[in-house]
Amino acid sequence: MDINLLNKLLSSFLREDIGRGDLTSESIFKPDDSGTAHLVARQSFIAAGAEMVAGRVFIIQNSRITVSAAAADGERIEPGDRLLTVSGPVIDLLKAERVALNLLQRLSGIATLTSTFVERVKNYPVLICDTRKTTPGLRMLEKYAVVAGGGRNHRFNLTDGVLIKDNHIAACESIKKAVQRVRNHIPHTIRIEVETDTLAQVQECLESGVDIIMLDNMSPEMMAEAVEIIGGRAIIEASGGITIDTVEAVAKTGVDIISIGALTHSAPACDIGMDWTIS
Amino acid sequence: MDINLLNKLLSSFLREDIGRGDLTSESIFKPDDSGTAHLVARQSFIAAGAEMVAGRVFIIQNSRITVSAAAADGERIEPGDRLLTVSGPVIDLLKAERVALNLLQRLSGIATLTSTFVERVKNYPVLICDTRKTTPGLRMLEKYAVVAGGGRNHRFNLTDGVLIKDNHIAACESIKKAVQRVRNHIPHTIRIEVETDTLAQVQECLESGVDIIMLDNMSPEMMAEAVEIIGGRAIIEASGGITIDTVEAVAKTGVDIISIGALTHSAPACDIGMDWTIS
Amino acid sequence: MDINLLNKLLSSFLREDIGRGDLTSESIFKPDDSGTAHLVARQSFIAAGAEMVAGRVFIIQNSRITVSAAAADGERIEPGDRLLTVSGPVIDLLKAERVALNLLQRLSGIATLTSTFVERVKNYPVLICDTRKTTPGLRMLEKYAVVAGGGRNHRFNLTDGVLIKDNHIAACESIKKAVQRVRNHIPHTIRIEVETDTLAQVQECLESGVDIIMLDNMSPEMMAEAVEIIGGRAIIEASGGITIDTVEAVAKTGVDIISIGALTHSAPACDIGMDWTIS
Amino acid sequence: MDINLLNKLLSSFLREDIGRGDLTSESIFKPDDSGTAHLVARQSFIAAGAEMVAGRVFIIQNSRITVSAAAADGERIEPGDRLLTVSGPVIDLLKAERVALNLLQRLSGIATLTSTFVERVKNYPVLICDTRKTTPGLRMLEKYAVVAGGGRNHRFNLTDGVLIKDNHIAACESIKKAVQRVRNHIPHTIRIEVETDTLAQVQECLESGVDIIMLDNMSPEMMAEAVEIIGGRAIIEASGGITIDTVEAVAKTGVDIISIGALTHSAPACDIGMDWTIS
Amino acid sequence: MDINLLNKLLSSFLREDIGRGDLTSESIFKPDDSGTAHLVARQSFIAAGAEMVAGRVFIIQNSRITVSAAAADGERIEPGDRLLTVSGPVIDLLKAERVALNLLQRLSGIATLTSTFVERVKNYPVLICDTRKTTPGLRMLEKYAVVAGGGRNHRFNLTDGVLIKDNHIAACESIKKAVQRVRNHIPHTIRIEVETDTLAQVQECLESGVDIIMLDNMSPEMMAEAVEIIGGRAIIEASGGITIDTVEAVAKTGVDIISIGALTHSAPACDIGMDWTIS
Amino acid sequence: MDINLLNKLLSSFLREDIGRGDLTSESIFKPDDSGTAHLVARQSFIAAGAEMVAGRVFIIQNSRITVSAAAADGERIEPGDRLLTVSGPVIDLLKAERVALNLLQRLSGIATLTSTFVERVKNYPVLICDTRKTTPGLRMLEKYAVVAGGGRNHRFNLTDGVLIKDNHIAACESIKKAVQRVRNHIPHTIRIEVETDTLAQVQECLESGVDIIMLDNMSPEMMAEAVEIIGGRAIIEASGGITIDTVEAVAKTGVDIISIGALTHSAPACDIGMDWTIS
Repeated sequence: MDINLLNKLLSSFLREDIGRGDLTSESIFKPDDSGTAHLVARQSFIAAGAEMVAGRVFIIQNSRITVSAAAADGERIEPGDRLLTVSGPVIDLLKAERVALNLLQRLSGIATLTSTFVERVKNYPVLICDTRKTTPGLRMLEKYAVVAGGGRNHRFNLTDGVLIKDNHIAACESIKKAVQRVRNHIPHTIRIEVETDTLAQVQECLESGVDIIMLDNMSPEMMAEAVEIIGGRAIIEASGGITIDTVEAVAKTGVDIISIGALTHSAPACDIGMDWTIS
Repeated sequence: MDINLLNKLLSSFLREDIGRGDLTSESIFKPDDSGTAHLVARQSFIAAGAEMVAGRVFIIQNSRITVSAAAADGERIEPGDRLLTVSGPVIDLLKAERVALNLLQRLSGIATLTSTFVERVKNYPVLICDTRKTTPGLRMLEKYAVVAGGGRNHRFNLTDGVLIKDNHIAACESIKKAVQRVRNHIPHTIRIEVETDTLAQVQECLESGVDIIMLDNMSPEMMAEAVEIIGGRAIIEASGGITIDTVEAVAKTGVDIISIGALTHSAPACDIGMDWTIS
Repeated sequence: MDINLLNKLLSSFLREDIGRGDLTSESIFKPDDSGTAHLVARQSFIAAGAEMVAGRVFIIQNSRITVSAAAADGERIEPGDRLLTVSGPVIDLLKAERVALNLLQRLSGIATLTSTFVERVKNYPVLICDTRKTTPGLRMLEKYAVVAGGGRNHRFNLTDGVLIKDNHIAACESIKKAVQRVRNHIPHTIRIEVETDTLAQVQECLESGVDIIMLDNMSPEMMAEAVEIIGGRAIIEASGGITIDTVEAVAKTGVDIISIGALTHSAPACDIGMDWTIS
Repeated sequence: MDINLLNKLLSSFLREDIGRGDLTSESIFKPDDSGTAHLVARQSFIAAGAEMVAGRVFIIQNSRITVSAAAADGERIEPGDRLLTVSGPVIDLLKAERVALNLLQRLSGIATLTSTFVERVKNYPVLICDTRKTTPGLRMLEKYAVVAGGGRNHRFNLTDGVLIKDNHIAACESIKKAVQRVRNHIPHTIRIEVETDTLAQVQECLESGVDIIMLDNMSPEMMAEAVEIIGGRAIIEASGGITIDTVEAVAKTGVDIISIGALTHSAPACDIGMDWTIS
Repeated sequence: MDINLLNKLLSSFLREDIGRGDLTSESIFKPDDSGTAHLVARQSFIAAGAEMVAGRVFIIQNSRITVSAAAADGERIEPGDRLLTVSGPVIDLLKAERVALNLLQRLSGIATLTSTFVERVKNYPVLICDTRKTTPGLRMLEKYAVVAGGGRNHRFNLTDGVLIKDNHIAACESIKKAVQRVRNHIPHTIRIEVETDTLAQVQECLESGVDIIMLDNMSPEMMAEAVEIIGGRAIIEASGGITIDTVEAVAKTGVDIISIGALTHSAPACDIGMDWTIS
Repeated sequence: MDINLLNKLLSSFLREDIGRGDLTSESIFKPDDSGTAHLVARQSFIAAGAEMVAGRVFIIQNSRITVSAAAADGERIEPGDRLLTVSGPVIDLLKAERVALNLLQRLSGIATLTSTFVERVKNYPVLICDTRKTTPGLRMLEKYAVVAGGGRNHRFNLTDGVLIKDNHIAACESIKKAVQRVRNHIPHTIRIEVETDTLAQVQECLESGVDIIMLDNMSPEMMAEAVEIIGGRAIIEASGGITIDTVEAVAKTGVDIISIGALTHSAPACDIGMDWTIS
């Protein structure tokens, strides 16, 4: 994650929340009033972005704010634990507080949900992976949180990965032709993935030299059969409605990757507050 | 919600998801290939943003796409219902699909959660209201969804509302002084709200001519007492950890407004898909 | 006023005046040539923005420029007084000079005009207030200057305040209905203001629970009558063509606020120059 | 003036005034409510920007607004005259109203002041010209208004013209050396102008092959002497504190150009209102 | 290539060349003067971007300009051939002319050079490919031109492809460890490429499961040996100083891809002019 | 060249090449790993932009990178010479490497080609000058490189210079009328240039008081004749297909300026690499 790009993104979030200034705090505090505050957990969870994201929000708001004692990405946090300590001008600490908390709560929520899935399949050689079902505008940060939770990233956008779906196949009349058409246009650095619903399609993928075969919404039994058919000739990704209750059964089938949209679209925010040290 | 501002925002979301183009679809379809697709519900929920947000995403991607049959904001949707029909160049329908779905799922999720709260207190003269605990970058859209679900909006950012909290009071030594300092700086068009933890603070607010008194994390009993003390001399807002299980008890106390962070930070996404009409 | 937002604004003004560089100064001076200059008053006026705006222009152009001895906002300045001293690379002092002067002259002009009005009504419990008749692109700075001159700010834009005017009333058929419709849509943190031309409208406002009643283009006599009718039940704002000659008569009527468009749209610029210290 | 650049500028002004929307009008009107309004003069003046600027503001806000009957730039307007008629969605007419008026009032004010100067010297072969003392962010529009009023433009910024001032001369020890240094760096398409305070400097300019000689703050007598010395060998620009009372005396001296900062920094806004046609 | 992104890019190029307007043409032509012009070849070459890039430049400048008769990408052009016909307002045709020509000349130059290489190796199953040695700001367009000339694209930037070079290997002490570290961080959709200088490194790549092996600056003999060693177990890319004189010898070795920086960094511009039809 | 503007430009180039980060280097190096590298010439050439452009690219990427030992603009470089030394975090050195090299190679290429032309005519009082045939997006940098190579700049864009061409003349029916129309619109700080094809047109230019006469595509003999006719009454610019082989013959004719599009549109990139110091 490039810092200059991150700075720009966080800066836009501060603009949204601050507007032209903080009517309340700018009325009450002087520019030189300073203080110290801590971002403190109100529940158990896995941390993501304490220093890299929340800390940076404060620094962008005012480069005189110092950030310390940040929880590491992926660290298990218990209620009462401090995730970050920030010191500097009170007005700017207050201006940055809400954005920092909103992000940290959301990213830690994603890391926590991801780690639950990862933990559940830890005895299998399988990776838990995100999708493009991220919050618009937050993809880079949400995918960062998935990694913090022990997961892995799928393609970032429509330009840096290929996924041939039913519409594409229908338009070409066969997987083979679709793959061929795509292969003639894309950089050789990018693998071709095809979404399949049937074992016949899986077979067709193998004959077309597909790099990654997505088994979409198949039952574990059908997946196991597909894994056997593929026999190591392609990377296998399981996808479609997989939950914490079904993930282990999917892992058992021998797939390489399990992608889960819920990691980013439905992770509940963690409860984190900001406590002040009286100075 | 101003359309020009909305266009700019949605446009940035498309950039994030599309990157420089859709490697897969641009390899397979011709610029002139056209089709029709429907955004279809896979579960029950309250719609938000079908035309205003999801529809607009398609139009921004390509102004030749036509949008029709949009579900109204606040409309109850059942599984299989169509929320929107879009027709036009296939490449652009595919490019806009993910952003449109991600937004519609999230906004409908917020509207649905909001309406659950609204429904629960429908027999009381109380408003359900959002907070600043929104997703960074999405505040305007998420607050739009709260309204679609029957809720109301609190201040948008730190510039268009005043909320005097404990830090502010501590710095001034009294609510009275804090209120006075703020009143001397802000436009007369904006009300002053103060966060209180005790009945003594509630009393001090009344003596300071506060416009809105927030009862923060109080028990329903204490809230009821506060309502009686205030006796109509200020708008009363209940806040702090109120859930669907406790909201009715809070409403019963006679407060005017109940603000709930979960409306925006923890609403699960609704399940919505995009189905194609074979043409 | 948020510094990060201010920096961005001032930066765009520098771009406008500098273009791709200063053909003259870059031909003549070396990047390391340094000097000291003073912004000096050529007439009497009230200062606004010497440090916060003019000083910052220099720092944005080159962070190695140091700024000192800035005149306080609201300070009375006499001819020959120094408003600011800047030291650093000559090329950048020259590049920032014109923007800094243009802003300081304009903002001090607004503060000076505002203070004239404020002074004229100092014996009355009334506030002098600006309007939306500001220079496009400069609203934040011009409203800052009004405060520096002892005035107060009205709403910043169409989103953070409500003003129901004749068109709105006509569309709803009555003030009451218009107020009701607005109240159902806006945050509870924002007061509702209605523009009135007649005493009957004033009466209707009171019955509709309007928070702020604007008396538009009324004679002082009519205003006095309106004040009596209102009897403290709403904030009263006088508006419409009020000049330095009529402002005291308006203040005498007992209104709370007098809003004056001329503060920002017709304040003449103050005469300020930049003098160099030979080094 | 390039339309695409203008659109971008006007769009930013709309953002400033509208914020996220018009709380009042969006509560009251439906998106389809339409109407017609006229920008009407409340005083006499010279028009500038009715179609090109004010009209465009409306179109940018909503391309469905139609603009007609625009007053020509430079046209003399009397009280009650219509400067522009706009028809379309009421919400957008109201959203664009304030920005359109603020600009039209300011630009017409500049055109009017300019035309007063131009009129005063109409019997002399001299041009009235603006300076860089424009409102930050509005230079392009204000210079447009100067032309509408019959004036001419000086350089736009530090990149597209050269003006060698006392600091530059001091750094080079002589006008000759300063001119030489500049000539070695700039495009041959740009003339070199030098600011002079004495006749000796005027003489030195001639010997250095200067293209434009600025006579700064000289008395009319001294200017006349300078004009004689120059004898047509350079363009002559008079500058420095020239007012409507002194401009004719300056014109009489035979200078080619008279530049006046007040055209843009101190022109009072014209009084223009927006009247609605009941539909 | 996404049109919305392209529009934004071309728009910035127009800004650069037009500035605030065309002093010459706006002085001479009326906004309604219209005309027709043709982009005409003055030499032989392969066309790239006539409609998609040059045509679009005109449309962005003024949407009333019509574009017709565009040369197809990859089409062989002879002197005198028309590449594009544009009709519309003369001022805007003139404003867009230079940018359209500069781009078309450059992109056609790249396509032409690429096709020369492609032609030279047409009897071998090898692809000619670009690099990251593109003109800053033009990468998307230059890579588009490579494809128009019959070539293929390498990764677009540092995010959508992996290339492990000597520094990376040195830091990890072995190719194996470097590959492992990278594989643990990247999406499974992206292939891993390693740059090799020796056959021992090639061997190590094979043992590390590298997807693409770059043979950097090797002699054709050494390349042939590497191809044999690899035996189809990885994609093979030849790179480093390959010229039109040496490319066939490289192709003969059996590599899959030949990447050539000169395609984009040293292709001479084609000579194309704009001729007007007298109307 | 203004540094703030330059920073913004270079920053956009880094975004293009880096995307969201460097997948390879961020996988392998730690944020604190640091190193030193040198930009080293692989051939002979004239340097341009080593410190001002390439050095700044590194600093923008990470302000902790230090830059030293930069080759001066216009300095003759031999194979093996170091043009710049950079030290700091390895990840950021690698991220900035490609952009810095691409720019330095291109700018040095332009400086080198320019100096070849300058050298060829060094015994004549003539200036070698660029055109608007620059790479879109790079004009400011490419014109900087022309100066580094000993050349001079023509107008930057359509706003800061005037060039009356055949279309303009045709529309006005005569050079005289075209010049008059332009003179009535433009600032007096800008010279008027007219493109001529015949000696009759040259004569007409003189009668119209044109400041600069461009002799377009004339033979040296015709140019010599034109120079004689003009007799010092205008600046003379030769233009149109002048090559290194013909430039001396053109210089001999006595023209003041020779403008050459090839300086920027066809200069081959110089070969420069980045070598690391093992630390």
